[in-house]
Amino acid sequence: MPSDALSTTFAALADPTRRAILARLADGAATVGELAEPFAMSLPAVSKHLKVLERAGLIARGRAAQWRPCQLQAGPLRDATDWLEDYRHFWDESLDRLDAYLKDLDSRKPPKRKKR
Amino acid sequence: MPSDALSTTFAALADPTRRAILARLADGAATVGELAEPFAMSLPAVSKHLKVLERAGLIARGRAAQWRPCQLQAGPLRDATDWLEDYRHFWDESLDRLDAYLKDLDSRKPPKRKKR
Repeated sequence: MPSDALSTTFAALADPTRRAILARLADGAATVGELAEPFAMSLPAVSKHLKVLERAGLIARGRAAQWRPCQLQAGPLRDATDWLEDYRHFWDESLDRLDAYLKDLDSRKPPKRKKR
Repeated sequence: MPSDALSTTFAALADPTRRAILARLADGAATVGELAEPFAMSLPAVSKHLKVLERAGLIARGRAAQWRPCQLQAGPLRDATDWLEDYRHFWDESLDRLDAYLKDLDSRKPPKRKKR
């Protein structure tokens, strides 16, 4: 099990259902029932995913006993993005190289022949 | 085990040693021995982490039998960042709210008294 905050965040994001739950919560708070609907998943299965997200600090849950709406908490997503940003120049560079290559290819094209 | 590419990427990033290996590779290609050095870790333990990174497409390894240098592959990191970018306005908004709150606090301060 990961123990540092960033590892816990990335582990929580390493599941398509949990990412879909976060995407749903980006539209506003929702109950467990509302979150379970689109997944054809049992409430306990969804609750398990919610616990992982809650432990990672990616969602917070209301206090009302029956209706405990879940809400997105974006702080850990910001920290994950901050970590990834350090690598941005690697793919930016690759795109620059691709761009230069395509321009070079283009300049080598023979001039278009006139139709006879 | 995660099966989709994005889940595989996030799972690979959910470990501090693997993130440290990627950080080292950001400075240039390195052999398994060079990567193992700073971690006081056995070569098989490091190789296990490298396999996870390789499966996730985050590193590529040279073909030379003895000296198979590892190289960073940033594509999956770009895809992970793209996913996270959709949530950027959430933390930007929180910072805006904090900023507004601090400005409001500031405007409520009583004017500084002159020293007697």
